[in-house]
Amino acid sequence: MSFKIGIIGVTGYTGGELIRLLLNHPQVEIAAASSRSNVGKQVSEVHHHLYQQLDLIECEMKAENFAHCDLVFLALPHGTSSLLAKELIALGVKVIDLGADMRLRDFNTYQKWYGAEHHWPEILPDTVYGLPEIYREQIKGQNLIANPGCYPTSIILGLAPLLKKGWVKLDTIVCDSKSGMTGAGKSLTQQSHFPDMNDNLAAYKLAEHRHTPEIEQELSALAGEEVLISFNPHLIPMNRGILSTITMQANQVLTQEMLDTAYQEFYAAEEFVRIRDKSHLPNTKWVQGSNYCDIAPVWDARTNRIIVVSAIDNLVKGACGQAVQNMNLLLGLDEGLGIRYGVMY
Amino acid sequence: MSFKIGIIGVTGYTGGELIRLLLNHPQVEIAAASSRSNVGKQVSEVHHHLYQQLDLIECEMKAENFAHCDLVFLALPHGTSSLLAKELIALGVKVIDLGADMRLRDFNTYQKWYGAEHHWPEILPDTVYGLPEIYREQIKGQNLIANPGCYPTSIILGLAPLLKKGWVKLDTIVCDSKSGMTGAGKSLTQQSHFPDMNDNLAAYKLAEHRHTPEIEQELSALAGEEVLISFNPHLIPMNRGILSTITMQANQVLTQEMLDTAYQEFYAAEEFVRIRDKSHLPNTKWVQGSNYCDIAPVWDARTNRIIVVSAIDNLVKGACGQAVQNMNLLLGLDEGLGIRYGVMY
Amino acid sequence: MSFKIGIIGVTGYTGGELIRLLLNHPQVEIAAASSRSNVGKQVSEVHHHLYQQLDLIECEMKAENFAHCDLVFLALPHGTSSLLAKELIALGVKVIDLGADMRLRDFNTYQKWYGAEHHWPEILPDTVYGLPEIYREQIKGQNLIANPGCYPTSIILGLAPLLKKGWVKLDTIVCDSKSGMTGAGKSLTQQSHFPDMNDNLAAYKLAEHRHTPEIEQELSALAGEEVLISFNPHLIPMNRGILSTITMQANQVLTQEMLDTAYQEFYAAEEFVRIRDKSHLPNTKWVQGSNYCDIAPVWDARTNRIIVVSAIDNLVKGACGQAVQNMNLLLGLDEGLGIRYGVMY
Amino acid sequence: MSFKIGIIGVTGYTGGELIRLLLNHPQVEIAAASSRSNVGKQVSEVHHHLYQQLDLIECEMKAENFAHCDLVFLALPHGTSSLLAKELIALGVKVIDLGADMRLRDFNTYQKWYGAEHHWPEILPDTVYGLPEIYREQIKGQNLIANPGCYPTSIILGLAPLLKKGWVKLDTIVCDSKSGMTGAGKSLTQQSHFPDMNDNLAAYKLAEHRHTPEIEQELSALAGEEVLISFNPHLIPMNRGILSTITMQANQVLTQEMLDTAYQEFYAAEEFVRIRDKSHLPNTKWVQGSNYCDIAPVWDARTNRIIVVSAIDNLVKGACGQAVQNMNLLLGLDEGLGIRYGVMY
Repeated sequence: MSFKIGIIGVTGYTGGELIRLLLNHPQVEIAAASSRSNVGKQVSEVHHHLYQQLDLIECEMKAENFAHCDLVFLALPHGTSSLLAKELIALGVKVIDLGADMRLRDFNTYQKWYGAEHHWPEILPDTVYGLPEIYREQIKGQNLIANPGCYPTSIILGLAPLLKKGWVKLDTIVCDSKSGMTGAGKSLTQQSHFPDMNDNLAAYKLAEHRHTPEIEQELSALAGEEVLISFNPHLIPMNRGILSTITMQANQVLTQEMLDTAYQEFYAAEEFVRIRDKSHLPNTKWVQGSNYCDIAPVWDARTNRIIVVSAIDNLVKGACGQAVQNMNLLLGLDEGLGIRYGVMY
Repeated sequence: MSFKIGIIGVTGYTGGELIRLLLNHPQVEIAAASSRSNVGKQVSEVHHHLYQQLDLIECEMKAENFAHCDLVFLALPHGTSSLLAKELIALGVKVIDLGADMRLRDFNTYQKWYGAEHHWPEILPDTVYGLPEIYREQIKGQNLIANPGCYPTSIILGLAPLLKKGWVKLDTIVCDSKSGMTGAGKSLTQQSHFPDMNDNLAAYKLAEHRHTPEIEQELSALAGEEVLISFNPHLIPMNRGILSTITMQANQVLTQEMLDTAYQEFYAAEEFVRIRDKSHLPNTKWVQGSNYCDIAPVWDARTNRIIVVSAIDNLVKGACGQAVQNMNLLLGLDEGLGIRYGVMY
Repeated sequence: MSFKIGIIGVTGYTGGELIRLLLNHPQVEIAAASSRSNVGKQVSEVHHHLYQQLDLIECEMKAENFAHCDLVFLALPHGTSSLLAKELIALGVKVIDLGADMRLRDFNTYQKWYGAEHHWPEILPDTVYGLPEIYREQIKGQNLIANPGCYPTSIILGLAPLLKKGWVKLDTIVCDSKSGMTGAGKSLTQQSHFPDMNDNLAAYKLAEHRHTPEIEQELSALAGEEVLISFNPHLIPMNRGILSTITMQANQVLTQEMLDTAYQEFYAAEEFVRIRDKSHLPNTKWVQGSNYCDIAPVWDARTNRIIVVSAIDNLVKGACGQAVQNMNLLLGLDEGLGIRYGVMY
Repeated sequence: MSFKIGIIGVTGYTGGELIRLLLNHPQVEIAAASSRSNVGKQVSEVHHHLYQQLDLIECEMKAENFAHCDLVFLALPHGTSSLLAKELIALGVKVIDLGADMRLRDFNTYQKWYGAEHHWPEILPDTVYGLPEIYREQIKGQNLIANPGCYPTSIILGLAPLLKKGWVKLDTIVCDSKSGMTGAGKSLTQQSHFPDMNDNLAAYKLAEHRHTPEIEQELSALAGEEVLISFNPHLIPMNRGILSTITMQANQVLTQEMLDTAYQEFYAAEEFVRIRDKSHLPNTKWVQGSNYCDIAPVWDARTNRIIVVSAIDNLVKGACGQAVQNMNLLLGLDEGLGIRYGVMY
């Protein structure tokens, strides 16, 4: 049996990566795809690497064109997916939104950080945040999932064991994240122009990146009280990968062994989280193309601080792989189907 | 049913890539692996990206340790695989040699270009060159296959339609090839040191690269007469990919359409060769991680010359993917099993 | 004493590089600069690296705004510099045009390859091609210089000794050139988008690149008869550098020593050409940021062919460094002033 | 008049960069050079880019071979320069040590972090730390200077204005630094192998990097009390550049304007520090090849924190450029001589 899947917003890097993962998935078929700019074109005219892999012409971006799908992925800029999501759900189609519009449970926070129109604010308080390692049971049985952002995935998974243990001084968390350039999207900008970014490195949107409230919402939920963080994003001259280095004060004296054990135990049952020891600090290349999140906690006895390093592929565990993981949960399939494969180096 | 597969020389990039492809193959299991330097270690201690993906300890590099395998891949430096190949075949194990020792049918040519010892020269004249698009029927039923070199794969596939048509002045062929740095291997050298190769570009081994006689052997077989070429290899600051740009004089006036048609027809039945038109000249990124060879022929009416561009991933179609393609043929499996998947961008 | 220099078209990478070289030149000052898009802005608002290095506001792009200059560099797209050049010369200002409009001595050839309007076709037959190693004496005393293209510089310097010797079968020359991405300009394109070009490699404009007639014009002049070539350009994932690998049939039996000696002698007096031996084939990184052209000839006795490798920095010897070299000749200064400095690695 | 300069440890990237800067310096000549591995060889046999730029054969690494020099740069691994420094000073030669052996004023701290032999511990308390923006007056007139480390330079300059103002909660400083790969040196390692580091990113030596006590020593001196920090170093797939992102709690409510003014005022007289505003956060490419340190402070009202971004070229302001700046001070020359030039992009 095969489920029919749609992709809305198929032109970007996220769209191309969704296609890759779905082509490799044994129980789904890509039934429809659309974007704003390429209606009527073959999808492979935009994604040249998919030439002869997918024979599909983009339809117009209307909910009704996806009514025959079991599930639709929305890969759209913020502010543009809430209306489509509402219409699709009304048509009985399950929706996984890879954009930001459904992630914040508080509408006021959404307005403050995004300043964008929203066509379905009343759904926000109940929408499930699609991080399976934290919300697996709530995800099953949903019709609508807010797929987490790339930076938040790396940071929330990196901190969850510590917050659950209650070992962290919550007002001392500094998250320094570095992202490959696919994270900045396919739209042409001077910052993403090859000669400008090659052999270059920069911080951006310090103290104002929109993933901040999403991270704080989830860390607060894990900690059971409000958490404010510093989130420092950077652009790195590579294609895929996010590395988050998270530093915080411990509220008690710990040891390296306590940290290692806490992480091993917290993620013992998780297929897609790998705990590394401090002599093998995660490299983004080790998770490239895969759905893994590699995490290593480090104890600094000198300063009584914990440093956590967390690595993902921003397009896989940070977007499309996690979306397929959620899809599997929504469709009642084996959670790792289509995203469990040998890692390419 | 599952075939037992061994890998000898598992430490290098080729070893890691073989593991990736075999892990994704539905009808094989990796039963044994070995290298010179890491006997007794977990394979994933060397290939960190494979952590928790493969639980296998390297055995000693002796044929008898692989006697229980149906097929063994040899991924060894030239001069070191002929003896192992001979012993494995004697034990009834099929062998695919990814090294250079079995590729030249003429022992004198081997000695001239490689200057290395050879423990099984008498097998050379009859060993089948494992390029399925050219030698498919001969490959089936063999016990030993010489897996082609990376540069030769890109050039032979790029020229085969023209040589079969007889359109080329055979003494005018210039092959200018560019390779990503995995092609230079995992051994540490100053040329491969990141600061030396990043933002750099160089030709190397002009008029003396060892792939030259291999290319000429196969082009001569296709043309039905002896072919001498210029082969100019280059190193490029990227990881994977070979792009060969091949220029030659035509022996008659042609048209772009004649070229396009000839290539489309020659490769009409081939799953892993994609013919692109001249407005979509192959990019190595379009084939990265995949077993495709993308080819575009270009007619230059002004000079009466043909230029062919051919792109592969040096580790897949240029090595391990092709080896798995050969494995499938030897084991009687669907030829594309395990190497037919959505391309990652 | 200090000469007043103007730059028209200051926004691009060429503009920024001209500024760098002129800031380091002891006998000139940048007196005016202009571009189409940033009139009224500080130059360093576009070239952030020049912050606090140059205090200059862009004027409107009119010849009269540069009337006080001794010499003006034009760094404009083809089709846009001929009128300005004419007006500036009329105002008594010397002009070095880094664009393509003045390079072809035959107007019909210009029209055929560029298809662009030209406002001063009658000047073309007499305009001197600014390659000092070939045309030094003609350059001195000119008011207008056509600064050579980047690819042509690498190829013409690479072939000049052989053509002067008369050792080449002129109908067999294949030029395979690879360029860093600054050569593709500062304008945003999908091909130059970081994630698309990083870890990628492609040929482009095969058999139709506009530098072809420029190369052929100069090779023909050197050979004393008409030369047709194949010119295969490629884009490489690095910022600066062009490597040209040029293959041709010799018309007689030569030796490596004959080649080395011919090159050493031809360029014995040239400060900016370095002849390397075949065991040190040029790397683009060795000339990065410098005005050097590194060249190595290789003899292939097996095929009776010569292969020449030639490396330059496309923005220096391929554009701005050569332009300053020409400026020094026009102003009667030491030819190497401002471009003779330690190479950065 | 020209000063005679020696370089001991000329083989590495630091050695090559010292040569570049000294070749461009109008009042010095390179009089002698040495390294452990290439005695008797031309320096340009190791630094190919310097071919025909420097005609100098490496002497043996003995102090007496440098007795005729006015000043010698030591560019050696830690543990190997203290004896040479002592001998050179005894011979009346000024010494600037680019290694780590002279930087820590407390010998016990040196032993704890470096665990290496030291041949001149009694000099440590009085050796001047060669950061001209902080210690200019002490540097003048010295015979021996400890040239700062690359990471420390970026962090100390980034924090000095805040510490002098007293605005920082001193126990909350987190320094997240990212370095290009020349910072990891010229010695071959798997981590620095091109295919392993290209498109990769990793943290390393968390909570144990040897620059930590050096940073803390200088921050403590600036703050007037002991400072403990977290220092998180990372390796980035680029050649040159360090970007430090430093996050800390303010001990009072500030504004963006207060920060901007404090930085502008603190560095008002400094040629090599450029303060950028928060809408132009430093890119490492803007300082590549130059002696600049670009700094931008950011106020985060939401968390009452300050984030400072500081960018240098690790080989220039982080090593050789700063060393030449110190040399100029020691020799009584204009401080910016030889390191004041147009920045290359």
